Amino acid sequence: MKLSNRIEQLAISPTRRYLGLAQEVEAAGTRVLRLSIGQPDIAAPNEYFEALGQLTRGTVPYPPAMGIPAMRKAQSDYYKKYGIDYAPEEIFITTGATEGITFAIQTLCDPGDAIMLIEPFYTNYGMIAQMQDVETVAITTSVHDNYSLPSLETFESLYSDNLRAILFANPGNPTGRVYTEEELQIIVDFALKHDLYVISDEVYREFNFTERPFVSMYDFEEIRDHLFLIDSASKKYALCGARVGSIATKNEYLKEAMVKLSQMRLGCPHAEQVAVAKLINLDDRYFDGVRELYRNRRDALREALEAVGTLEFSEPEGAFYTMIRLPVKNAEDYVVWLLKNFSIDHETVLLTPASGFYKTPGAGIDEVRVSYCVDADILRRAIHIVAEGLKEYPNN
Amino acid sequence: MKLSNRIEQLAISPTRRYLGLAQEVEAAGTRVLRLSIGQPDIAAPNEYFEALGQLTRGTVPYPPAMGIPAMRKAQSDYYKKYGIDYAPEEIFITTGATEGITFAIQTLCDPGDAIMLIEPFYTNYGMIAQMQDVETVAITTSVHDNYSLPSLETFESLYSDNLRAILFANPGNPTGRVYTEEELQIIVDFALKHDLYVISDEVYREFNFTERPFVSMYDFEEIRDHLFLIDSASKKYALCGARVGSIATKNEYLKEAMVKLSQMRLGCPHAEQVAVAKLINLDDRYFDGVRELYRNRRDALREALEAVGTLEFSEPEGAFYTMIRLPVKNAEDYVVWLLKNFSIDHETVLLTPASGFYKTPGAGIDEVRVSYCVDADILRRAIHIVAEGLKEYPNN
Repeated sequence: MKLSNRIEQLAISPTRRYLGLAQEVEAAGTRVLRLSIGQPDIAAPNEYFEALGQLTRGTVPYPPAMGIPAMRKAQSDYYKKYGIDYAPEEIFITTGATEGITFAIQTLCDPGDAIMLIEPFYTNYGMIAQMQDVETVAITTSVHDNYSLPSLETFESLYSDNLRAILFANPGNPTGRVYTEEELQIIVDFALKHDLYVISDEVYREFNFTERPFVSMYDFEEIRDHLFLIDSASKKYALCGARVGSIATKNEYLKEAMVKLSQMRLGCPHAEQVAVAKLINLDDRYFDGVRELYRNRRDALREALEAVGTLEFSEPEGAFYTMIRLPVKNAEDYVVWLLKNFSIDHETVLLTPASGFYKTPGAGIDEVRVSYCVDADILRRAIHIVAEGLKEYPNN
Repeated sequence: MKLSNRIEQLAISPTRRYLGLAQEVEAAGTRVLRLSIGQPDIAAPNEYFEALGQLTRGTVPYPPAMGIPAMRKAQSDYYKKYGIDYAPEEIFITTGATEGITFAIQTLCDPGDAIMLIEPFYTNYGMIAQMQDVETVAITTSVHDNYSLPSLETFESLYSDNLRAILFANPGNPTGRVYTEEELQIIVDFALKHDLYVISDEVYREFNFTERPFVSMYDFEEIRDHLFLIDSASKKYALCGARVGSIATKNEYLKEAMVKLSQMRLGCPHAEQVAVAKLINLDDRYFDGVRELYRNRRDALREALEAVGTLEFSEPEGAFYTMIRLPVKNAEDYVVWLLKNFSIDHETVLLTPASGFYKTPGAGIDEVRVSYCVDADILRRAIHIVAEGLKEYPNN
C-alpha cells in the first residue's frame, strides 16, 4: 500500500490530537476542562435556526457556484460597516474559510512555489500548502516581545524567487496578537516590492480587545489589487458548524480564478447560505455582547496567569487565544502527563501543545496555546490546575 | 500578474460554459429548453425541510470531522439495503461527491502520478486531477458500441508505472451507460494485477433503467481492499444544493488518510448532514416513483431521437444522460448557433457540447450530451428543434 507522500507527511492537527485521550480520561471519571478548542461555546443566533425553518420547499438545485446572491450581498453589506468596499460580485462564498485559503493557494502557487507564514501560525495553513505541494517559509515571532513582526530586513532575508504570497491571521491564531498599522505596513511594503500576494485571514475581526481600532489589510489602498480577504461565519456568529466562509478580491485575474475553482466544486450548501445571509440583520449589540463576554474571560485568564507568577505568556489582544511558555522541557509531554496523571477535585485540563504551530524545528517546544472559549470560572480553575500540576510534574 | 499554471489551464466546465449566453437569449424573449443540466427538477423530500426546521437550537460547534454519527449511520444503513456492508466508521461524509473524489486523488497520487479515466468522462474528474497536478490517462469508449469497455489488453496497453488508480462513474455521466458485471471484472483484474486503486462513483445508483440489476464495484469481493466507493445525496434525493456526499473504504490506510483530510477541513455543514440523515427513513416507494418518472422521460427521449432517423445516439441505460452524434463538423459551434439563431415558437435548446468530456484531442467533437431532467413534453419539443435546426444549420 503506497499512499501519496503528501498524505503520509500530513500531521494530525495539534488541536485535535488529544481529543481521543481526553474522552478516555472523562470516561474514567475525571472532568477535562478544555482550553484546547478554538470554537465559541455560546449559542448561535436564533435567527439562524428560524431561517432554516422557513426555507422554501421544492427543488434544491446546485446553488450558484460563487455563492447565492443573498449571501454575497450580506457579506458585502457586512464589510461596508467596517468601511470595506467589496461589491457582491467581488465576494465568493466558500465552505468555511478553509476552502477560501485553499482556493487562494491553488490560484497563486504551483508545486514548488512557496508561501510565507508568520510562525507560530494556524496549523492548517501549513497543511493546506503541503497538500498542494507548496513550500512554506516562516517569519519567526516570539512570546518574548508579544509576537511583534520583525523588520522589513528580516522579511527580505527570507525572500526567494519562488515566493508567491504571504498568508497570516489577524487577529492571530494561536498568538492572540492584533497587529498595529505599522507592522502591517511592513507586510504591504514587502509584498509590493516583490509583486507578492497577500492572503489576510480576518475571521477574528470582531475579537479585538486592544484600545486600538482593528486595522484590516483592506485599509492599505496600495495592496488591494494584491489582496485576498478571508472571512467566515464560524467565529463572529458562533457558527463553526455552518461552514460558511468567503474570499474577496478586487483583482480581475483572481476573480476569474475564483469563478473557475467555485464552478469546479459546483457550490456551497444552500440552506446554510440562506440562513447565514439572514444574520446581516442582527442587531450590532449582538457583537457588543459577545465581545464583552470574551473580554471578561480574557481578563480572568490574564489575572489567573499573572497570579501564578512563574509563567511567561503573550498579551491576549484578540481572537480568543493566548500562548504560554511553560517551565518544562517538552510541553507536549506535559500536556499528556497532565491529562493522564494529574487532577484536582476530579478535574484536569486539556491544553494544545504549540510546537505544531511552528515550522522551525524545536521552536515552541515549551509552549502551549490556551483558548478562552469557556467561562471565566473554568479558566481560573484550569490555570490553577496547570500551575499545581507543574509543581508535581517529574520531567521539568 | 502570474497565476499558477494549474489554474491558467483549468477550463470552464462544458455544462456551465453557455449558461450566460442562454440567459441573454431568454432575456431577449426566447425560451431556452435546457437539456444541459444534470440535476433533478423534482422537489426535494419534505422530510428534509422538516428536519431543518426542527434543528436543536443552541451551539453549533464544528461537526465531527468525519461526519456526524447520524449521517454516517444513515449512509451505512442505506448501503445495507443494497447488500453493501460498510460500518459507519468506514464511511466519511464529504461536502458533495466532489470532495470525496478530491480526497481520493490526494490520498493516492503525488504530482506526476496518474489516474486512469474512461472517456467520455465527467469533466470534473479531469479538472480535479489537474488541480492536484495529477496526470490522466484515458481509456476511449465510443457511441458506436454504446460505450462498452474495451478488452483487458487495451487497458494493459495504457498501463504505466506512475498509474495509481482508476476513476469512473457507473451509471455513467455523460454516457448514460450501466456497465455489466463482465465489463467491471476487466477493471477489477487490471487493478489487482498492478496494485491499482479503484474510485467508483456510484451517485446514479438508483437510475438504472436496464433489465440487469445494478452491479456495484463493492460486489467484487477481491477489490474491496483497493476500493473507494463514492456516493451523494444530490441525485438520489434531488438534493444537489445540500452538498452532502460520502466516501467509503475498508482499507485501513485509506481510512487513516480520510481521517487526516477530514480533520484538515474541520467538517461538513452540520444542518445539511442532520437533515439528509433523516432521509434514510424515506419510504422505498419514493425511489420507485422517481425511477418511473425518469424511465418515462428516457422512453420519450429515445422515441423522439429515433423518430428523427438521422441521429446516432447511445442507449440511455442509466443516470439521466444520452450522448448524441450530430451530423455536423463541430457540435460546439452548432450548440452556439442553435442558441443564437434558431427557434421554433419562441423556443430554442441548450445542449452540452461533448468534446470537454474527452481527453483525446478531437474526440467527441461532433457529439453532444443531453440530460433528461425535464418533462417528456419538453424533451419531445427540444429534440424536434434540434432536428429542424440541423436542416438549416449552414456549417454542416
